[in-house]
Amino acid sequence: MENNKSNQKTTVKQKIWELVEATDHEDKPKKDLDYFDWFILILILLNAVAVILETVKSIDQRFGDYFLAFEIFSVIIFTIEYVTRIWACTSQPEYSHPVWGRIKFIFTPMAIIDLLAILPFYLAFTTLDLRFIRTLRIFRLLRLMKLMRYSSSISLFGKVLKNRKEELIVTASIVFVLMVLSASFMYFAEHQAQPEAFPDIPTSMWWSIVTLTTVGYGDVFPITTLGRIFAAVIAVLGIGMFALPTGILGASFVEELEKQRLELNAKKEKKKCKHCGELIE
Amino acid sequence: MENNKSNQKTTVKQKIWELVEATDHEDKPKKDLDYFDWFILILILLNAVAVILETVKSIDQRFGDYFLAFEIFSVIIFTIEYVTRIWACTSQPEYSHPVWGRIKFIFTPMAIIDLLAILPFYLAFTTLDLRFIRTLRIFRLLRLMKLMRYSSSISLFGKVLKNRKEELIVTASIVFVLMVLSASFMYFAEHQAQPEAFPDIPTSMWWSIVTLTTVGYGDVFPITTLGRIFAAVIAVLGIGMFALPTGILGASFVEELEKQRLELNAKKEKKKCKHCGELIE
Amino acid sequence: MENNKSNQKTTVKQKIWELVEATDHEDKPKKDLDYFDWFILILILLNAVAVILETVKSIDQRFGDYFLAFEIFSVIIFTIEYVTRIWACTSQPEYSHPVWGRIKFIFTPMAIIDLLAILPFYLAFTTLDLRFIRTLRIFRLLRLMKLMRYSSSISLFGKVLKNRKEELIVTASIVFVLMVLSASFMYFAEHQAQPEAFPDIPTSMWWSIVTLTTVGYGDVFPITTLGRIFAAVIAVLGIGMFALPTGILGASFVEELEKQRLELNAKKEKKKCKHCGELIE
Amino acid sequence: MENNKSNQKTTVKQKIWELVEATDHEDKPKKDLDYFDWFILILILLNAVAVILETVKSIDQRFGDYFLAFEIFSVIIFTIEYVTRIWACTSQPEYSHPVWGRIKFIFTPMAIIDLLAILPFYLAFTTLDLRFIRTLRIFRLLRLMKLMRYSSSISLFGKVLKNRKEELIVTASIVFVLMVLSASFMYFAEHQAQPEAFPDIPTSMWWSIVTLTTVGYGDVFPITTLGRIFAAVIAVLGIGMFALPTGILGASFVEELEKQRLELNAKKEKKKCKHCGELIE
Repeated sequence: MENNKSNQKTTVKQKIWELVEATDHEDKPKKDLDYFDWFILILILLNAVAVILETVKSIDQRFGDYFLAFEIFSVIIFTIEYVTRIWACTSQPEYSHPVWGRIKFIFTPMAIIDLLAILPFYLAFTTLDLRFIRTLRIFRLLRLMKLMRYSSSISLFGKVLKNRKEELIVTASIVFVLMVLSASFMYFAEHQAQPEAFPDIPTSMWWSIVTLTTVGYGDVFPITTLGRIFAAVIAVLGIGMFALPTGILGASFVEELEKQRLELNAKKEKKKCKHCGELIE
Repeated sequence: MENNKSNQKTTVKQKIWELVEATDHEDKPKKDLDYFDWFILILILLNAVAVILETVKSIDQRFGDYFLAFEIFSVIIFTIEYVTRIWACTSQPEYSHPVWGRIKFIFTPMAIIDLLAILPFYLAFTTLDLRFIRTLRIFRLLRLMKLMRYSSSISLFGKVLKNRKEELIVTASIVFVLMVLSASFMYFAEHQAQPEAFPDIPTSMWWSIVTLTTVGYGDVFPITTLGRIFAAVIAVLGIGMFALPTGILGASFVEELEKQRLELNAKKEKKKCKHCGELIE
Repeated sequence: MENNKSNQKTTVKQKIWELVEATDHEDKPKKDLDYFDWFILILILLNAVAVILETVKSIDQRFGDYFLAFEIFSVIIFTIEYVTRIWACTSQPEYSHPVWGRIKFIFTPMAIIDLLAILPFYLAFTTLDLRFIRTLRIFRLLRLMKLMRYSSSISLFGKVLKNRKEELIVTASIVFVLMVLSASFMYFAEHQAQPEAFPDIPTSMWWSIVTLTTVGYGDVFPITTLGRIFAAVIAVLGIGMFALPTGILGASFVEELEKQRLELNAKKEKKKCKHCGELIE
Repeated sequence: MENNKSNQKTTVKQKIWELVEATDHEDKPKKDLDYFDWFILILILLNAVAVILETVKSIDQRFGDYFLAFEIFSVIIFTIEYVTRIWACTSQPEYSHPVWGRIKFIFTPMAIIDLLAILPFYLAFTTLDLRFIRTLRIFRLLRLMKLMRYSSSISLFGKVLKNRKEELIVTASIVFVLMVLSASFMYFAEHQAQPEAFPDIPTSMWWSIVTLTTVGYGDVFPITTLGRIFAAVIAVLGIGMFALPTGILGASFVEELEKQRLELNAKKEKKKCKHCGELIE
């Protein structure tokens, strides 16, 4: 009710704010994206594609100018979007003060991401160091983070992480101790035989990770009998531990999505026994 | 009841239609396959075996003529089957018009698959380009898709995909973003050290896939310290994400099969409401 | 009651039968193994250890005579056990006929396994072909199958396989079709570039297995762009399918063990509400 | 009540005991660690970091003296901690005898771990053998085991292992038999073709482990057709079995954490029997 009431009083500034901001009044991603949202969404995805394709030499040599034009176009749009947001944010109660409200808004996570999306472009003008400019190009992929504004799956993901925080900390610390211990054991067993593959414990951790995740590139592996026995025991016991956080996250994810669906269904119809009319629990 | 009644009036055409069509009146795969169905089923499987064995040079040199004879025999059977279906489809209400009904039938998915199963053979006569003919041979494996007509497991699979559409889209998009981001990070970290393994981001995606699925062939892997740290973090976090769609699909598959079994049991003994004794739907 | 009664009338033959046979009256593995069972159990395990150690050249050269002596000793014991079983089986109602009953018993699975456990030893005398004798040695590991008589976990495993037969057939056939199709695709994509790694489709199946199980030795992998794209799609989609039977089996195994435990607990105490004395469902 | 009462009479010795001992009266890890506990906790973690970094040559050469100083400092603290515990343990009823109580305490697992944490340092003085001293250094990582005193996740883990003991034994023995059998099969198939990769069955077990855990380094793999067929069958069937203990552990872990949370919630609001309104335990 009150929402509708306050909507009636919306100024132009507030309407613009609602246009450029994809989140609704409760900070959840909007269900129905408007044309502007879709335009920005597709622009972000095209930017990601452009960054990826630019690294391919043959494509860059041929279409380099188009990429540059698209980059300038994107930065202009994103800059306008960013400036508009800063200008319009004062229409919201929490950022109402013309100076302090805007400064407060600038330091919200989404506003920082918006800044990071355009900053590399402007920074490139401040230097002549070509290597630095090249490095900046990759940072353009940070624009993908702007997608977070539109994604309900990421907000779901955050929820899962929060729900299972305790379990994840417990298993993550087990995983970490396991990684350190197995790296130390293998260093102890293999350092003499393969000083270049297991030169020290931090480097041996690479073996731990590659083995415990079952990736097994084959660039480092034990060759001594003791090392192989250690590796066998570590692999059999450790892979189970490494799979724990995954299993917990996965189970929780499915559960959370199930809950969302049930809530949706529950709203539509409460189940009743067809014959006596009583609610079935 | 009505079914039986309409069956009494079946013409020869309709009987032939029921013979060549493996699906029942409700478009579900028939439970009891007749002799004709089994013949086609085995012919399809033998075709797959033939295509596989033909690629073995020693077998092809010795039995090449037999393979050719079997291929011609198969195509004749499949062509007769296809033509018969087109002729007999007008016995069905939805394809009853002699011209438009048949055209409508030709564009149903199963009819297209039937055409694709025989087309490569006929296309081979239109050209003398041997390489093209060779390529066509592999397309004969598309005949395996004809099996879909007989398989209840594939229809189950489709059901699972439909039920979990939302979850799969959410996790698939996470997986995709993860793949792109990790490929970009590794390109950034390893491009200088291994320009031939990580020449650009699209090629680096091969590393992403091989690592995040934990296949780990060992053809591409990071060698710099930064790359290894990135790879370790990506592997530990990402493998869990990659396992999500798998876990969701698997859980849903088991659930769906369980439901089918319960439904079967439920038909035998029906549940009653504890309070009024009436059957609960 | 009736069991006890019939036990009172047991003859010597029946007592010997019960001694050598580890299964109880209901064909389940005995809960409490007697001294004879433990002796055979340990003898089987020592046999496995002996076969394994004999393949180590240095150990075989030094302790070869002891291994031979142990082998002769084992075969004598297993032969006595086998003959005793055949002699004593007539004490059981189902094998009571002195000739046909014994022949029937000889063809029971466990009796065949018992025969296979000793046959290689005697077969070795029938030939002077050393290579054949060497091959026979490995067949001694079949003695491990004699363990099935004592293992309740294997009987549990059989139960799980039977319960989930339908699911396993469905997923196994999906897995098989997937393997064949992915091998064919990769043959099509990589045959030109790597004729020795992908010479024909049957050999390409080795790549399919190694990839879809995520083992990824790195002996065969795609190098062309088309092959890598195929491999990426196959890996992402296929690994989930390959994990399905595993997931189903695992879930069913846990469930079955849980059921066994609940049944055990249910026997001990039926739960009641402590206050009103009513059973809590 | 009684606890509070006895706390009122605590002597200085008992207070010191409670300071150095991280476990509470019921042998569970304390919920609220005091400053001393945090100091020891961080000292243990820093020790692990120091051991790891010392193995990096460049760091060791530059900061070797600091590492030595830190080591001496740590040993002094841990020695004081250990001696204090032995002195103060007599304040506890179970170790009250001045001599036998202390000897009994010395042989408790946690006290043995405390001794192992400092012993390598003192043992180094007893010898001039540099290699032995180097080996002792790695044993300093055993200090990480001192963390067990503070970790509730490890106590949870122990609980899970105990709850699922039966399942784990069953699956572990299946896994072990599988490993032995697959190693024997591969030895049989590949010994002739690759005598250096599969010289005997114990060495072939390395292949079994690497394959069945899906690590697949690529250092050993079958090359013969028979070996590849064996490997394919073993991989498809065996990986599922190897994943069983992992799945069981994971499911149990999640379940146990869920139970702990429910217990926490249950304390807040207690369940009542629907029929008589009394609390259900």
